[in-house]
Amino acid sequence: MSLDGAYDPANVFARVLRGELPAHKVYETADALALMDLFPQSPGHVLVIPKGVEARNLLDLDPKALPPLMLAVQTVAKAVRRALNPDGVIVTQFNGAPAGQTVFHLHFHIIPRYEGMALKGHGQSGMADAGELAAMAERIASAID
Amino acid sequence: MSLDGAYDPANVFARVLRGELPAHKVYETADALALMDLFPQSPGHVLVIPKGVEARNLLDLDPKALPPLMLAVQTVAKAVRRALNPDGVIVTQFNGAPAGQTVFHLHFHIIPRYEGMALKGHGQSGMADAGELAAMAERIASAID
Repeated sequence: MSLDGAYDPANVFARVLRGELPAHKVYETADALALMDLFPQSPGHVLVIPKGVEARNLLDLDPKALPPLMLAVQTVAKAVRRALNPDGVIVTQFNGAPAGQTVFHLHFHIIPRYEGMALKGHGQSGMADAGELAAMAERIASAID
Repeated sequence: MSLDGAYDPANVFARVLRGELPAHKVYETADALALMDLFPQSPGHVLVIPKGVEARNLLDLDPKALPPLMLAVQTVAKAVRRALNPDGVIVTQFNGAPAGQTVFHLHFHIIPRYEGMALKGHGQSGMADAGELAAMAERIASAID
């Protein structure tokens, strides 16, 4: 999808937010939801999405919605660090399919990096085990400050 | 550098902020500065850094400093799109050397993606031409809304 175009309310994150699809939730505020990526690029890969706004990407987002979203990103990134003690953490956000975006509801990736463990391509290894994702979500949630 | 440790005020972005090193500035507010990356991964690669805070990374940053920084990131990303009409835009931020961080003052990368043009590794192609960077900075600055 190009950077132009309309928000499609049938995207999977919109469906999660409407309760039509399940998710391994890590953290939730009035304005943001953090959930485990089903196709983790490394163990502990979390996504943070805005609630209550129709934004395909960062370019679309009402600036008023940005601060609470980013505070949730920071809160979760710190919890990932605390819970998993990775060697590094990547925060990344893709705008448009040519940038790597696959779901067109704005989302920030929080991806732990571990020395000696290469990142997987997104979706490269298939969907993660649901039990492992649930356990990871619980572990990170318990480290939220 | 690991995720632990102290802020080193001799880092290059701190030196830019103190006026000790030049930069191709794109946008500046009371809280943030946007400047061209000297080793662009694609044409139009901009960095956005916070001013007036000593934060190595997102995990360190005082949450009060996050909203104005991110509003600057969004403003510049929109200007990059308007000025350069890329097919996509990546926004990314590295915490710790194992995540890809090389300068230990918090910075967000705004990297345009163009169909058919692979991203260069960071620093892979040497420093960009100063004249080209200056022209690019001017072009993006003129598209700030």
